[in-house]
Amino acid sequence: MFHPFRQAKILITGGLGFIGSNLAIALVKKQAIVTIVDNLTPNQGGNLFNINPIKNDVTVRNFDIRDTAAMEQLVKNKDYIFHLARQTDHVLSQKDPFPDIDINIRGTTIILEACKKHNPHVKFIYTGTRGQYGKAITLPVSEDAPTNPRGIYEVTNLTAEKIVQIYHDIHGIRSVMLRLTNIYGPRAQMKHNHFGVVNWFIRLALDQTPIPVFGDGLLQRDFIYIDDATNAILKTAASENCYGEVLNIGKEKAETFLHLAKTIVKLSKNASYTFAPFSKERASQEPGHFASDITKIHRLTGWRPKTTLTTGLVKTLNYYKKYRTYYW
Amino acid sequence: MFHPFRQAKILITGGLGFIGSNLAIALVKKQAIVTIVDNLTPNQGGNLFNINPIKNDVTVRNFDIRDTAAMEQLVKNKDYIFHLARQTDHVLSQKDPFPDIDINIRGTTIILEACKKHNPHVKFIYTGTRGQYGKAITLPVSEDAPTNPRGIYEVTNLTAEKIVQIYHDIHGIRSVMLRLTNIYGPRAQMKHNHFGVVNWFIRLALDQTPIPVFGDGLLQRDFIYIDDATNAILKTAASENCYGEVLNIGKEKAETFLHLAKTIVKLSKNASYTFAPFSKERASQEPGHFASDITKIHRLTGWRPKTTLTTGLVKTLNYYKKYRTYYW
Repeated sequence: MFHPFRQAKILITGGLGFIGSNLAIALVKKQAIVTIVDNLTPNQGGNLFNINPIKNDVTVRNFDIRDTAAMEQLVKNKDYIFHLARQTDHVLSQKDPFPDIDINIRGTTIILEACKKHNPHVKFIYTGTRGQYGKAITLPVSEDAPTNPRGIYEVTNLTAEKIVQIYHDIHGIRSVMLRLTNIYGPRAQMKHNHFGVVNWFIRLALDQTPIPVFGDGLLQRDFIYIDDATNAILKTAASENCYGEVLNIGKEKAETFLHLAKTIVKLSKNASYTFAPFSKERASQEPGHFASDITKIHRLTGWRPKTTLTTGLVKTLNYYKKYRTYYW
Repeated sequence: MFHPFRQAKILITGGLGFIGSNLAIALVKKQAIVTIVDNLTPNQGGNLFNINPIKNDVTVRNFDIRDTAAMEQLVKNKDYIFHLARQTDHVLSQKDPFPDIDINIRGTTIILEACKKHNPHVKFIYTGTRGQYGKAITLPVSEDAPTNPRGIYEVTNLTAEKIVQIYHDIHGIRSVMLRLTNIYGPRAQMKHNHFGVVNWFIRLALDQTPIPVFGDGLLQRDFIYIDDATNAILKTAASENCYGEVLNIGKEKAETFLHLAKTIVKLSKNASYTFAPFSKERASQEPGHFASDITKIHRLTGWRPKTTLTTGLVKTLNYYKKYRTYYW
C-alpha cells in the first residue's frame, strides 16, 4: 500500500482551526510528523481543544503567518504545507477590507516566498472557497466557470489562489489549489455566526433557539461533512496529477437551507426554525444557488463525498453535546 | 453639445505618469478642474515635465495613495476619480511581490474606502491591464474570457478590479473597470525597459542601438496610441451605461513585434533591429498572441481607435526627439 504521509514532515497553518485541526488529526493517524502554526486570533476559529486527541503528538507554534522570519524557519524541511490560516470573519471583512488583504493575500505570499527561498521542493496545498465563483451561471459549477466574487473575503481568497498558481508555474512550487464549498462538522467555532452557517444552525438547535431560515429557505447549497473534505484534501496532496490544478471540493447534489433546518430540528430535542428576511447587506452579497461540479477531482483522485447530511449532522450534534463547554 | 467634464472636479492618481498626464492634458482642454496626486516614485513613470503644457492649470499634490488621511481629503468634492497610480515595474514585481500587493491592492482599496466614507457619489475609473487575462484562448479576447494572470503585477491589477466591482455593487460607487492593452506614445518613461515595450523600442531607435526582437518576432500584440486610449477612457467615464462594466481598450487587429520593429526602423535614421532569444523568466510569463475584442466598448460608447501604427510612431518619435532631455 501507498502511504504518502507516513513519517512525512507536515506544516499546517491555521492548524488549530476547524479544517486545520481535522487535517492534523487525520495526518497523525497516518503517522505523519505534524507541526501546527496558529496565532489563535480571536473569533477566527482557532481553539486548542480542537487538537485534544493529538495534543501530545504534534508541535504547536504560536506565530502569525505574516511573521516572515518565523515562516522562513517553519517551512524548512517540510514535505507538505497545508495552508489554512485565513481571515475568515465575513462581518469584519464587510466593515474593514484590510485584514483580509493583509492576512489572506500578503500572508499567503509571505509563506510562498519563504518556500521559494528555503524549500522549493515542498508540496503546497491551498484551500480557497466556492465564494471565488460568485453567482453561479450554470449548476453544478466547474473549475473553469467565471470567478466574480461578491465580497472582500472571496476576492482575497481568489487572489491568493492566483498567486499560488504563479509560484507553481514560475517558481516550480508544486501546489494544489482547492475551492471548498460549505463544510460543517466537529471543531468549527460555535461562538458567532460570522462564518460557518451549518454549525451555527446546530448551535441554535442545541441552545433551543429558533433557527432563522432566510427568505423562503429554498436557496440551495452543497453542504459537506468535514471528514469528506479532509479526505479530499489529503487525496489531492498525495496525487501528483493534482499539482498545478484548481479543484472543487463539494457535492453535485445541493440541498435547501429549509431542508437543512428541518433535518437539524428533526434530529435535536426542542429545536425549531423560523423564517426571517434577508438583511440588505446579506442580500447584496448572496450569490444564489450553489453546487460543485466534482468531475475533475473524482477523475484525478477517485474522491467522492460519502457522508449523508443526516449522518454528518448526527455526528456533529453528538460532538458538540459532549464538548459544548469548550466551544460555547 | 454634451460637455461632461466642463468645470468638473477631477482627481487623477498617478497623474504625472504616462496615461495620467495625457488624461490631465485632455481634461484641462475640456475645461475640467484637475487635481493630480503623484508621489513621483522612482522608476514608475512619474515625470513633472509630462504636465508642462498645463503646469499652471492643474493642482499637483505629492502624496502616496497609501496615505489614508491624504486620500480622505483628496477624494472629497470630486466628480470623477481616474485611478492610474500603480506599481508597474515588472522587474521589481518578479523579485519582490509585496510592493504590488501593497500599492495596487491595498492602495486602491484605501481610495475606495475614502470614497465610501467621504464621496460615495463620485465616478471612479479604474485602469487595469490585458495581462489580467493571461494566455488568450481565442482571439480577439473579450471581457468574459478566463482571467489567468501570469505575474504578480497582473494578479494585483485583477484583484484591484474585483475590489472596485465590489464597491460598485455593494457600496454604490459608480465605477468603470478598464483593461488596457499595450499603449505607447508621448509621456511614457524612457529610462528603462521594465514596462512599456513600444516606447523602449523607440528609445533604442533614437539611441541608434539595435532593437531586440525576441524569438522569431511573430508574437502579435494590439499596440494602441495614447490619444486613442485617452479618448476611450474619457468616453467610458462620461457614459452612464459603462458604470459597473469591465471594458477592453485595445484593437482587434494585432501586429507582430517584428512589424513594429521594422516600422520604427523605417521611420528613424540609423536605427536597426536584431533577433534575440527569450530569457527564461520572460518565456515563463509570456502569454502569447493578444488582441482585444472591443465590441463592448464600441457598442456602449461608439469608441474605436483611429491612429495607425505609423502615425502613432511618427508622433512619438517627434515628441522624444524634441524633449529627449526630459526623458533620457
